[in-house]
Amino acid sequence: MQFEINKAFIQEIRDLLSEGNHAQIAERIAKIHPADIAEIIQQFREDEANSFFQLIEGEKRAEVFLELDEDYRDELLSSLTSKEIAEQLIGQIDSDDAADVISDLSEKQQAEVMSHLEDDEQVSDIKQLLRYPEDSAGGIMGKELVKVQEDWTLAQGIREMRKQAAEVSEVFTIYVVNNQDQLIGTLSLKKMLFSPTSIKSTFKEIYTTKEPKFIMAHEKAEEAAKMMEKYDLVALPVVDEEMRLLGRITIDDVVDVMKEEAEKDYQMASGLSDKVETTDTVWEVSRARLPWLVIGLFGGLLVAKVIGVYEDAIAQVTQLALFIPLIAAMGGNVGVQSSAIVVQGLANDSINMQTIGQRLWKEFIVALVSGVICAGIVFGFNLIFEDSIKLGMTVGIALFCVIVFAALFGTFIPLMLNKVKIDPAVATGPFITTTNDIFGLVIYFIIAKAFFNL
Amino acid sequence: MQFEINKAFIQEIRDLLSEGNHAQIAERIAKIHPADIAEIIQQFREDEANSFFQLIEGEKRAEVFLELDEDYRDELLSSLTSKEIAEQLIGQIDSDDAADVISDLSEKQQAEVMSHLEDDEQVSDIKQLLRYPEDSAGGIMGKELVKVQEDWTLAQGIREMRKQAAEVSEVFTIYVVNNQDQLIGTLSLKKMLFSPTSIKSTFKEIYTTKEPKFIMAHEKAEEAAKMMEKYDLVALPVVDEEMRLLGRITIDDVVDVMKEEAEKDYQMASGLSDKVETTDTVWEVSRARLPWLVIGLFGGLLVAKVIGVYEDAIAQVTQLALFIPLIAAMGGNVGVQSSAIVVQGLANDSINMQTIGQRLWKEFIVALVSGVICAGIVFGFNLIFEDSIKLGMTVGIALFCVIVFAALFGTFIPLMLNKVKIDPAVATGPFITTTNDIFGLVIYFIIAKAFFNL
Repeated sequence: MQFEINKAFIQEIRDLLSEGNHAQIAERIAKIHPADIAEIIQQFREDEANSFFQLIEGEKRAEVFLELDEDYRDELLSSLTSKEIAEQLIGQIDSDDAADVISDLSEKQQAEVMSHLEDDEQVSDIKQLLRYPEDSAGGIMGKELVKVQEDWTLAQGIREMRKQAAEVSEVFTIYVVNNQDQLIGTLSLKKMLFSPTSIKSTFKEIYTTKEPKFIMAHEKAEEAAKMMEKYDLVALPVVDEEMRLLGRITIDDVVDVMKEEAEKDYQMASGLSDKVETTDTVWEVSRARLPWLVIGLFGGLLVAKVIGVYEDAIAQVTQLALFIPLIAAMGGNVGVQSSAIVVQGLANDSINMQTIGQRLWKEFIVALVSGVICAGIVFGFNLIFEDSIKLGMTVGIALFCVIVFAALFGTFIPLMLNKVKIDPAVATGPFITTTNDIFGLVIYFIIAKAFFNL
Repeated sequence: MQFEINKAFIQEIRDLLSEGNHAQIAERIAKIHPADIAEIIQQFREDEANSFFQLIEGEKRAEVFLELDEDYRDELLSSLTSKEIAEQLIGQIDSDDAADVISDLSEKQQAEVMSHLEDDEQVSDIKQLLRYPEDSAGGIMGKELVKVQEDWTLAQGIREMRKQAAEVSEVFTIYVVNNQDQLIGTLSLKKMLFSPTSIKSTFKEIYTTKEPKFIMAHEKAEEAAKMMEKYDLVALPVVDEEMRLLGRITIDDVVDVMKEEAEKDYQMASGLSDKVETTDTVWEVSRARLPWLVIGLFGGLLVAKVIGVYEDAIAQVTQLALFIPLIAAMGGNVGVQSSAIVVQGLANDSINMQTIGQRLWKEFIVALVSGVICAGIVFGFNLIFEDSIKLGMTVGIALFCVIVFAALFGTFIPLMLNKVKIDPAVATGPFITTTNDIFGLVIYFIIAKAFFNL
């Protein structure tokens, strides 16, 4: 049976913890994956979490640490001295993770932790990684990799690789460089292991991919994720402007980037300004939710002012008030649909080949179809239930106009934002909705005034 | 320089195609990755795409085919005979991809294609894979893997593995089985290559992970994705009830699953009932958009009926109409936020440890905070701009009530849907919005009637 966390197990650890039965705990968690241990810790109270964390031995402690959520990490970091951070955590983990952890510390503490690190190469690796922005390819790469020079023989290479591989948790691909350390090719471990080549041949003779995929360190991490997804890569080499091999990005890092991207877009579409975890405090959740709510609220107040202009019309034909939410909601729905399609198309790169004009034209045709159908339904409804051709015409025509406007506006805004390098996902949610509300209602009342001679 | 698709290149291929200069085309695309070639094809007209596809040689043609979007695949499949499909496509690709392609064919054509396949093992692999549902672990696994028996010597193993590895594009991990073909451990290629073990030792002595992570074939593909993400795995072995090794899931398949999941949730939240590509026809786009729009439309008509009940109140105090969109929109916004948090929490598994009661309680507290702040703003606004305490009180209190209701409702519904095994993401969008609209407006008018003595 595979291990699975459940409440009974958590309670068991909790009980052992309060009994101080450390030997039993060590035995219980020996075979459990660091990711599972981290999940258990996150179910504990602060004091329990701290003392449990201290019971995890050696390298595993560092691995568990990396799996914890941000708040738990910060909590634990603040309870450790710089020396402990250096020895128990940073010294045990890969350069990219080490750089991530260190970048969260104050500048003073960064220097202290670095001074306690024993491995000079690690120190210089971390310093180099800290120079890249967090969201760049350089910012998510690790320095650990296995590389060989093209003129080495296989025998020589295997000796060198054995040393390098000790530092690398998963090798995936061997990188072949020339004597200027420039990436010229790759070789899979499989080819190396199973090809019937003499160990006296040089790597130049056997490496497979002559034009390997790579990414420049300063490019966006998102770009690396797209490449790895498109070309089904598990590792992507990172180079500098001179094609010198700097590090590599592995698929697990990229999966995290992809997940964060998707979550961010989803949050924006749902009107959340920040990532909300179910474990967050009330204050954290409110802080993520209030900005869009307050913006939406002011939007609503603005809409109230706009309707106020037509108060006389409503006073004369009260029925007009009935369809205010419908006009507003449909404008919002269509706008959100249109912008979501654009945002997803941009995220997939599937939109690049079309011009803004082409997108808008197609959107216009789709909107005509939706508009005619929806307007027809509303007109029919009014004819049957409200028995008013004038009202039916007013609502139907206004609905048609608002659908077409919302579709074009919802398409245009994210495309525009993308052009000026603003994340198009901000366009989804309250902003588009409020604009569509105002436009839709103004159109609605203008048409109403015309039909009812107000 | 790395190859990048651009309009000039596409035009060049297009020109060569119309000139019939096939040799030049072959040369141009020789070094281009199948994923890029697929992207080029998708820029072409149907006739161009077909003749271009025919120019791609051998295995690469199959690889390009796999990278194409669904519609292009269907298009090409219908232009090929069963024999061509078997020989040019299915015969060249991995079992999991082959099963995917075949499952899209009619039952008659499936049998025809299978009868043209030369490799009996492939036929039985495909037949086995077709038995699993598309969204199960078995449905996304491939049969290609490298496995050794625990009692083989390394020397013996390497000979066997060399044969197996020829079929496997990326090996990642060697699976160790006992003589009943049950998975008992794994061994990394790296350990195999660099460990200083004698080639006379058996695998029993050197395999590393004694309790490897695995998944049962009948479990959900989504579950496999979660495991691989959590444990940073690049390949996950799939077993049957008796722990016999059936296949393995690789990270590229899982990346696709994750992406589809995220896109699906995003679409639902945006009111799209289906995946919309920017290349889709007007009809396809409309079909994905109309269902939610029409549901939203009927919701709006229902809301109109509800407001109709209070037509007298509006006739007497026209100002009440001004805040109808605000009340409706805020209920919608809060409801969508709440349900999005639950949907994301469920997707991350971070919600499992809390009971529904705990979630609702916390949501209630957060809603109180948001409700008080928003109600305060609206009350202040009314006092200043509308100069009406009665109206300010009405709108403020109604807003507070609708925020609290929408938060609880938006949390409760997806949790409930999840309990009864319906995708909670369907709760986001029009359904929650319409319900909140109706509740919010009824509360609004009830309070208004009380304050204004209507």
